[in-house]
Amino acid sequence: MNEAIKQAEKEFLEYVKKMGAYNEALSIMFWDLRTGAPKQGVEQRSEVIGMLSSEVFKMSTSEEMAAYIANLTTAEAKSELSEITLKTVEECKKEYDRNKKIPADEYKDYVILQSKAESIWEEAKDKSDFELFRPYLEKLVETNKRFLEYWGYEGNKYNTLLDMYEPGVTVEVLDKVFGELREKIVPLVQAISESPNKPETAFLFENFSKDKQRAFSLEILKQMGYNFDAGRLDETVHPFAIGINPGDVRVTTNYDENDFRTAVFGTIHEGGHALYEQNISSELIGTPLCSGTSMGIHESQSLFFENFVGRNYSFWKKNYALLKEYASGQFDHVALEDFYRAINESKPSLIRIEADELTYPLHVIIRYEIEKGLFNDEIEVKDLPQVWNKKYEEYLGVIPPNDAKGVLQDVHWSGGSFGYFPSYALGYMYAAQLKNALLKEIPNYDELLESGNIDPIKEWFTKNVHQYGKMKKPLEILTDVTGEGLNAKYLVEYLYEKYGKVYQLNL
Amino acid sequence: MNEAIKQAEKEFLEYVKKMGAYNEALSIMFWDLRTGAPKQGVEQRSEVIGMLSSEVFKMSTSEEMAAYIANLTTAEAKSELSEITLKTVEECKKEYDRNKKIPADEYKDYVILQSKAESIWEEAKDKSDFELFRPYLEKLVETNKRFLEYWGYEGNKYNTLLDMYEPGVTVEVLDKVFGELREKIVPLVQAISESPNKPETAFLFENFSKDKQRAFSLEILKQMGYNFDAGRLDETVHPFAIGINPGDVRVTTNYDENDFRTAVFGTIHEGGHALYEQNISSELIGTPLCSGTSMGIHESQSLFFENFVGRNYSFWKKNYALLKEYASGQFDHVALEDFYRAINESKPSLIRIEADELTYPLHVIIRYEIEKGLFNDEIEVKDLPQVWNKKYEEYLGVIPPNDAKGVLQDVHWSGGSFGYFPSYALGYMYAAQLKNALLKEIPNYDELLESGNIDPIKEWFTKNVHQYGKMKKPLEILTDVTGEGLNAKYLVEYLYEKYGKVYQLNL
Repeated sequence: MNEAIKQAEKEFLEYVKKMGAYNEALSIMFWDLRTGAPKQGVEQRSEVIGMLSSEVFKMSTSEEMAAYIANLTTAEAKSELSEITLKTVEECKKEYDRNKKIPADEYKDYVILQSKAESIWEEAKDKSDFELFRPYLEKLVETNKRFLEYWGYEGNKYNTLLDMYEPGVTVEVLDKVFGELREKIVPLVQAISESPNKPETAFLFENFSKDKQRAFSLEILKQMGYNFDAGRLDETVHPFAIGINPGDVRVTTNYDENDFRTAVFGTIHEGGHALYEQNISSELIGTPLCSGTSMGIHESQSLFFENFVGRNYSFWKKNYALLKEYASGQFDHVALEDFYRAINESKPSLIRIEADELTYPLHVIIRYEIEKGLFNDEIEVKDLPQVWNKKYEEYLGVIPPNDAKGVLQDVHWSGGSFGYFPSYALGYMYAAQLKNALLKEIPNYDELLESGNIDPIKEWFTKNVHQYGKMKKPLEILTDVTGEGLNAKYLVEYLYEKYGKVYQLNL
Repeated sequence: MNEAIKQAEKEFLEYVKKMGAYNEALSIMFWDLRTGAPKQGVEQRSEVIGMLSSEVFKMSTSEEMAAYIANLTTAEAKSELSEITLKTVEECKKEYDRNKKIPADEYKDYVILQSKAESIWEEAKDKSDFELFRPYLEKLVETNKRFLEYWGYEGNKYNTLLDMYEPGVTVEVLDKVFGELREKIVPLVQAISESPNKPETAFLFENFSKDKQRAFSLEILKQMGYNFDAGRLDETVHPFAIGINPGDVRVTTNYDENDFRTAVFGTIHEGGHALYEQNISSELIGTPLCSGTSMGIHESQSLFFENFVGRNYSFWKKNYALLKEYASGQFDHVALEDFYRAINESKPSLIRIEADELTYPLHVIIRYEIEKGLFNDEIEVKDLPQVWNKKYEEYLGVIPPNDAKGVLQDVHWSGGSFGYFPSYALGYMYAAQLKNALLKEIPNYDELLESGNIDPIKEWFTKNVHQYGKMKKPLEILTDVTGEGLNAKYLVEYLYEKYGKVYQLNL
């Protein structure tokens, strides 16, 4: 290999490793803040986090970084460097370009705006007062529109925003798959609401002690193949999974002593995220490739485990007796079949994060349509509450009684995260498509769940998804595994089959 | 103020703050590693810690730092800068000088040697084989002797090593006070061993559940004035306190279900360290002055609370009933007086960290005498086991059956920490001297303990010790508070009075 390139590669990888080290320290501090850091230390900790983050930002946009990118993207370099190095350069270049295109003072103003907007949003949500938040949201949208001009775009303007979370996914693709999904889910929701065969659910809400819920959750994590030598389970208000490095991927959950589902399905969901991060190839440690490839693929892993494993009948055939052991009698007179129907209850609701798996995609689609409208000048911020409520009525048949339960419910926009929401529904579609591919190789899927042998399923995901980290783009993973692009059909089929049975519908 | 100086000060303080931020991140990672970090993440975490540490080291010895020191130590600067800035510069200069005087390649070799020596020491201790460790210890001593030549010294060579942990304390001082201490303690230990009035202790070793021990320990921490909004209590094999910043000072303890003293006195000890760190003036946050001024003064705080509070009769007059509530009956038929005598049992033993408060200083003095001999070429490493055992026999009347329980017992030397041990006994002497001063202002000391009102005692320490951080040197604190230098008399008096009573001696 050309000596100059070899030397540049060596230095570049060291440089990137240092950025990774700072990010690892930041992750630990993030986890610590959420799992019990003393409150009087928080202010100083925030300063420390700010200082380290800005160091990482500086490194990602430094002249040194520019030189590495220039030297390692020549034709000669491309022909000589390893794939890992090339992808690492690509990743760094993407971030460099994105950050460098924004004039420094505009970026600084934006960071200040974000932080103000988040605290105003909190207040506005508390008071259910959209007008309070409106000027900030207008400014956030306006600034992002200006940034879009700096960044440039192909086709629809909104594509550039989508690309940040789901590289390669465009409005053209989403219009098609979300359109199909909406068209099929809306009538199913309608049919369910008219069905006389609704599940009994009262028994779900009896007291189930936190300790016992935790013990049961740990059993399930173990069954999923979560590696406790490379992780731990803690308690937080808002559950999350965090990959600090593949040998340290932590999960948190939240306990509701009157609704065990919060902790159990929450843990399974976060456990799905964690399996992804635990099984990334160790070759990628120290590079920016050592994490999930996109929000959507990440969500495909959590939703797969939460719904296709955790809400599967065979899974409970194996685990219902165990659940009964940990609970204090609430399921003693409930047949497995009735339990299964209860945890798969579906009904339209106002709040996205509390939605069931059938209605959830509709919440996401509403947000997608609104964001697309905002960035194509078809919707104005001032009209949002009205637009929001109208869509909820149309798609879900419910009308928010106020903005706190409507347009103000999510934190995302206050932080300037536009283009993020679609990933939630994409994850779901990816999961259904991946499952279809998995069944070809593992036709005895239900049997495995019934015997508590989830390992072959986890291994399949590691082989096809986890190990690659960011070495493959999301759509690359999808087509490599399934042989086709995004397709709503699989999710629709799954939902029709499942809910048709749960509600005994004539479809 | 001179504009150039003003500007240099501003930049210097920013620079130092950044070093502080890295150190805060390192502290969190250190704490995390010891309180449950998943083991498969440890290797990568160590790399991250190494990278951040070396960044801090580079910053402390950089040309930038050299320029700050030069610009901020001119006569003009000294007359214009605040005391905090001046002390910060002084602290940075001390470290700069120390680190810069060692040739870079020698320092690097030394770091490698330390890490090898630590792992060999562990093996040697396991096998109780001093010969295995000997070549490493010889090299460590040799290297430190060479470093001493680079650093220079005044009077005794060993003074430079002492100065790292206890600035201002010299061999001349230690010979005097340790000599006096030894001379007085040895006959007291002898008298006790011959006393027929030994306390009954069997009841100490009954089962006391971990949860209950923890609950009781939390009560005591609260009574001490430990601020739980600025701290937390966790469990580790080796207890410690860590000041991450004054708003985040964490304590850990270890539970022995058959000996509650481990957790209770351990927690009080670490709590004493924590009170120090929690009450450093917030003005010092972000500077290297924001921590305890020396190992010895730190130990004075932990030992004060452990022994002068936690092993005080009045303290248990208040808390014995509470302890009984948490215990499962083991003290039900034990009178307070007998309990008090039991927790103050003294008898010569082999292991320093398990020693009682009377014999403890002798363990330290032995190590001091050995280190002084090593660095003044009066003792050779190869003779250490023999020298060690002889001194144990002479001072404590016990002979180690093997090197694991003798010369290999402490980790310190394997890490190249020479000059550290004396701080343990100094802390004890400081504590006794400070208590004497405290009694002049708070003569109703015992009454306060008896009523559970420890606050005025804590406040006194905050006013006289805690708040200053490193703004005052250890001996400066001592003389400012007591009006005199180190004096063994107060500790001797305390020990004679206390143990005279516990063992009903005719002294």
